[in-house]
Amino acid sequence: MSNLLVLGGARSGKSRYAQLRAEALTGELVYLATAQAFDGEMAERIALHRADRGPRWSTVEAPLELAEAITAHSRPGTVVLVDCLTLWASNLILAERDSTAATADLLRAVLDAPGPAILVANEVGLGIVPDNALARRFRDVAGRINQEVAAAVDEVVMMVAGLPLVLKPKA
Amino acid sequence: MSNLLVLGGARSGKSRYAQLRAEALTGELVYLATAQAFDGEMAERIALHRADRGPRWSTVEAPLELAEAITAHSRPGTVVLVDCLTLWASNLILAERDSTAATADLLRAVLDAPGPAILVANEVGLGIVPDNALARRFRDVAGRINQEVAAAVDEVVMMVAGLPLVLKPKA
Amino acid sequence: MSNLLVLGGARSGKSRYAQLRAEALTGELVYLATAQAFDGEMAERIALHRADRGPRWSTVEAPLELAEAITAHSRPGTVVLVDCLTLWASNLILAERDSTAATADLLRAVLDAPGPAILVANEVGLGIVPDNALARRFRDVAGRINQEVAAAVDEVVMMVAGLPLVLKPKA
Repeated sequence: MSNLLVLGGARSGKSRYAQLRAEALTGELVYLATAQAFDGEMAERIALHRADRGPRWSTVEAPLELAEAITAHSRPGTVVLVDCLTLWASNLILAERDSTAATADLLRAVLDAPGPAILVANEVGLGIVPDNALARRFRDVAGRINQEVAAAVDEVVMMVAGLPLVLKPKA
Repeated sequence: MSNLLVLGGARSGKSRYAQLRAEALTGELVYLATAQAFDGEMAERIALHRADRGPRWSTVEAPLELAEAITAHSRPGTVVLVDCLTLWASNLILAERDSTAATADLLRAVLDAPGPAILVANEVGLGIVPDNALARRFRDVAGRINQEVAAAVDEVVMMVAGLPLVLKPKA
Repeated sequence: MSNLLVLGGARSGKSRYAQLRAEALTGELVYLATAQAFDGEMAERIALHRADRGPRWSTVEAPLELAEAITAHSRPGTVVLVDCLTLWASNLILAERDSTAATADLLRAVLDAPGPAILVANEVGLGIVPDNALARRFRDVAGRINQEVAAAVDEVVMMVAGLPLVLKPKA
């Protein structure tokens, strides 16, 4: 099935654009949330985003087992939206998982999914080199995931200030 | 009147491009500076930029009351250039103003302006998540302003290494 | 001769794309490495990259005397790849060299080179303003080099998630 990667920085409108693209399709809508509320600031953001989506959506939390969640929830009449791969990358690192193997599993699940998949990811590599080694490692892992997913999917869009810039047009 | 948003990172050539676009229009040129010199480094940058602009420009400082300054200075034969919205966002936060209301006022002033408006803004959301909460809040506010302005204006250009990339072409 | 600037963030695929563009040309391939291994993390990255390139390449280290290295190694039948200008900028600052004069020398060497030149650079200006003055100065120098090189070369490409975005198409 067709799939889409939506890239963007913080407050670029990537989640909203991904949701609009999902809502433009017919069928059920499943939101696979990778966010985990570690503190009040995160919990507030998660609740706001959930309220934003409206009743057509069901939400499933998948902070780590993302490939399994895609496989479990994708059906011919269902759109699966993953938001976002960059928090997932962060969760993988914190849980000391092998991100290379996890990414291979993810790509297999996305490409084998019977329904359309829309994946959201942050672009985090366009600032100054971070001071600490963990942030550099996170940036590397997130960037590699973005490259691999971008190569595999049918369409890639980068959001800037709420405007979509097509990086890989749908064939 | 027609208006333009010029986005870009640090040293992307956004101010220079915005000035060239303004100078390509006929009429008077008013530079609305949102910068405030808190230290020697800032004062030096401001002075260099002012010298760069040349005698066709008049400069007005508007660190906070930006909507009012646009309304006061826009005329049919006058180009107003705002440089930049991101420092303004930072000034709003430091002054504990409501950025949502201020942005609504700004957009009303831009859309009602009898002359053309050119707005410069920084893209600050494409690096690693900042460590401290204030920087994250600033990034959120700046990003939301960019999205709202980009949606409202006629044309949006993103500068990268001095080269313009059209994100929203003029109709 | 024709020349190309490949911009991109961390893990954007810029080095790989630059190498593929070089390998698509006939003739010898010279890799001008500006990296200096100050610690184990850097040494590991350098060794991985070198192994990645394969036997068609010869590697020359040019952390500071980049213009001289281009002039010394460019020949009609030879492609010179510089990776990357942003580490070079950092080396110039650490060595307290005049980056403006060094950039002028670099551009002269690139434009006078008898063979094609491919230059890689990081885009580092799209995050939050760095806390410390040295990082801000580095960001300014790197950004100015990018602008000057982008203005001078025939073609500029920005890599995002492994996908090329043409900023300046080859005439």
